[in-house]
Amino acid sequence: MYSFIEQGSVTTTPGFSAAGIYAGIKKKRKDLALIYSQVPCSAAGTFTINKVKAAPLLLSKEVISKGNKVKAVLVNSGNANACTGEIGFEDAKTTQKYCAEKLGINQNEVLVSSTGVIGQRLPVEKLIGGIDLIVPELSEEGGISAAEAIMTTDTKRKSYAVQIELSSGIVTIGSICKGSGMIMPNMATMLAFITTDAEIESTLLQKILTQTVNLTFNKVSVDGETSTNDMVILMANGVSNIKITENSEDEIKFAEGLFAICKEMAKAIASDGEGATKLMTINITGAHSQKDADLAGKCIANSPLVKTAVYGRDANWGRIMSSIGMSGADVEPDKVSIYFDQVPIVLPGFNIVLDEGKATEVLTKNEVQINVNLNGGSFRSTWWSCDFTENYIRINADYRS
Amino acid sequence: MYSFIEQGSVTTTPGFSAAGIYAGIKKKRKDLALIYSQVPCSAAGTFTINKVKAAPLLLSKEVISKGNKVKAVLVNSGNANACTGEIGFEDAKTTQKYCAEKLGINQNEVLVSSTGVIGQRLPVEKLIGGIDLIVPELSEEGGISAAEAIMTTDTKRKSYAVQIELSSGIVTIGSICKGSGMIMPNMATMLAFITTDAEIESTLLQKILTQTVNLTFNKVSVDGETSTNDMVILMANGVSNIKITENSEDEIKFAEGLFAICKEMAKAIASDGEGATKLMTINITGAHSQKDADLAGKCIANSPLVKTAVYGRDANWGRIMSSIGMSGADVEPDKVSIYFDQVPIVLPGFNIVLDEGKATEVLTKNEVQINVNLNGGSFRSTWWSCDFTENYIRINADYRS
Repeated sequence: MYSFIEQGSVTTTPGFSAAGIYAGIKKKRKDLALIYSQVPCSAAGTFTINKVKAAPLLLSKEVISKGNKVKAVLVNSGNANACTGEIGFEDAKTTQKYCAEKLGINQNEVLVSSTGVIGQRLPVEKLIGGIDLIVPELSEEGGISAAEAIMTTDTKRKSYAVQIELSSGIVTIGSICKGSGMIMPNMATMLAFITTDAEIESTLLQKILTQTVNLTFNKVSVDGETSTNDMVILMANGVSNIKITENSEDEIKFAEGLFAICKEMAKAIASDGEGATKLMTINITGAHSQKDADLAGKCIANSPLVKTAVYGRDANWGRIMSSIGMSGADVEPDKVSIYFDQVPIVLPGFNIVLDEGKATEVLTKNEVQINVNLNGGSFRSTWWSCDFTENYIRINADYRS
Repeated sequence: MYSFIEQGSVTTTPGFSAAGIYAGIKKKRKDLALIYSQVPCSAAGTFTINKVKAAPLLLSKEVISKGNKVKAVLVNSGNANACTGEIGFEDAKTTQKYCAEKLGINQNEVLVSSTGVIGQRLPVEKLIGGIDLIVPELSEEGGISAAEAIMTTDTKRKSYAVQIELSSGIVTIGSICKGSGMIMPNMATMLAFITTDAEIESTLLQKILTQTVNLTFNKVSVDGETSTNDMVILMANGVSNIKITENSEDEIKFAEGLFAICKEMAKAIASDGEGATKLMTINITGAHSQKDADLAGKCIANSPLVKTAVYGRDANWGRIMSSIGMSGADVEPDKVSIYFDQVPIVLPGFNIVLDEGKATEVLTKNEVQINVNLNGGSFRSTWWSCDFTENYIRINADYRS
């Protein structure tokens, strides 16, 4: 059993403090966030599969893969420190080191993360100045401010928390995330930082996180792009003194809570897709295999033609059918049924039952479900995407200027 | 040696006549085309790999795969006759049969092809009426009119012809094509009809066509979509009495001419991509394998972020680098160099030599070359795409209305 907490964030979790400030990296808005736990945390992470990996990502991945306990995550927006070569890696290390010194902890207890423009050198001086300012700002109310500081083209701050009732008491999971463009399956695909006061050793933490990310963040697509920088970090400081062991009932309950919070984040990222006006949820059922379900769902979620049709409130189901056909999934097109929410559009045998009025009614809402039954087997997959609008183009044609 | 002929089309080729008329399928513009050769033709074709295949495509594929000689191609725009099930197939057969009767030829000498909205029944009566009108219109000047009749969201008519000097004389290749949205590699990906008066038996014709399509039409991307209807048809009526045999010098020359004309069509389709303002040519060199070269080129050609940056005249090379990184190609990012035309942007080791002024100058042109050297091997690949603009969204949000 879990329940969401209003205005929740990474600092809803006991033992975590955070802050978000303006350090001069962006033109105006907040651009530096810090999350901190006095108690060392087990840490797990999932990272981009793009072969071009940003320097801070490589550094944080190294820390986590060694099984080190961590205490802090320093995140800047406005500059990705990606495609910056050797010097970019040194820059990331410099900020990691300086942050550790200021916090009075070891360098390898600090994770670093960046998001923003690719290929420009990290403004290290500004980060150093920012670290001087942000450390004294750390507070147990700072999670929301941190959520603001990691935004780029996001229009909405994204932060959540859930409480989960386990056999021996309650644990909390808190989170902040960002992500709006350059979002695509097959990886964390944005930044998400998750805290919990449960006690879980890092191998188990990693297992639960990987499973959850695969069903949530990796099922989001805004534009089919996979970023060089994206990561999901989960830190467990254990201050609840509630230990979760492998294959226990509590593990299942914790994973359910983590899934719920990650699903909320995934949906928030999709619905805040660059220029988006609608959240699209794509439910594939009746697939011959998990792979087929995923291929079909991913292809619809990524299709510019489906996404522009949804934007135009056009019940152009033929584009959905065509997308399924080109997805590489093993499907029999004449067995497929398509519903928008509960409204049937086409039934097996290309039996078109589309009622344009009812379909338009669904497509006028802020959230649209595309429910596809392949009627071939028992596998299913859920994806999140958004409509595709003129504003996506405007945002991305002007991004650096 | 080959040379392009001005105002060339399918009827530049001796022995072919054609026409394009308005049959009432679309609201206003021409929507029915017919290409005809009195002399039976060897025929070759490449067809969509989308699992959802339109009825006319299945019918034409059947004719060609049997090695039948053909005399005519009937093409309508305004309705794709796709996702129409059994009845759609019957409708396609009805029009094929009626067209054959009117021409006084066998039913299996007629190929049929459709493009337009998916999932609506073919207006057979209108096609029948149109066939009555179009047969008397066939003429040796009708190729241009036929090119107009197969357009959908195309803004420009596309037709070409080349003459090729072979060992024993001159042969002609003429063509018309359409394609603007729903364009993506891995298939014909639009409609193209090619005529020649060379004498070539169908197996050799198919071999040459398949090779050529793979290097031209299959290297075009507008939006990563593969249509249910797309096909390339090549018909050889042999009236030049110049026979081309396998593994001859003449085969090489003929293939060169066919490549030239197909490349022109591919570029025309990319530069007329829905809403496009610019043609993008992506040249990948230095790949470890052909597969790596193709993956990297395809990923850049499909990237909404690269395409919006080019639209915004933004030398955002980081998006190109990121695209290469997510392409699945085996690359070492720090060896990559990127040029826009001849202007260096980034050299190996992420050595950024970008001169914003010079880069913007290149990006202001109507044709932009993105030249990427992976510096890892000797394989190469060329792709064509276009920029991504607000008009793509507008066109596709409103398509059915």
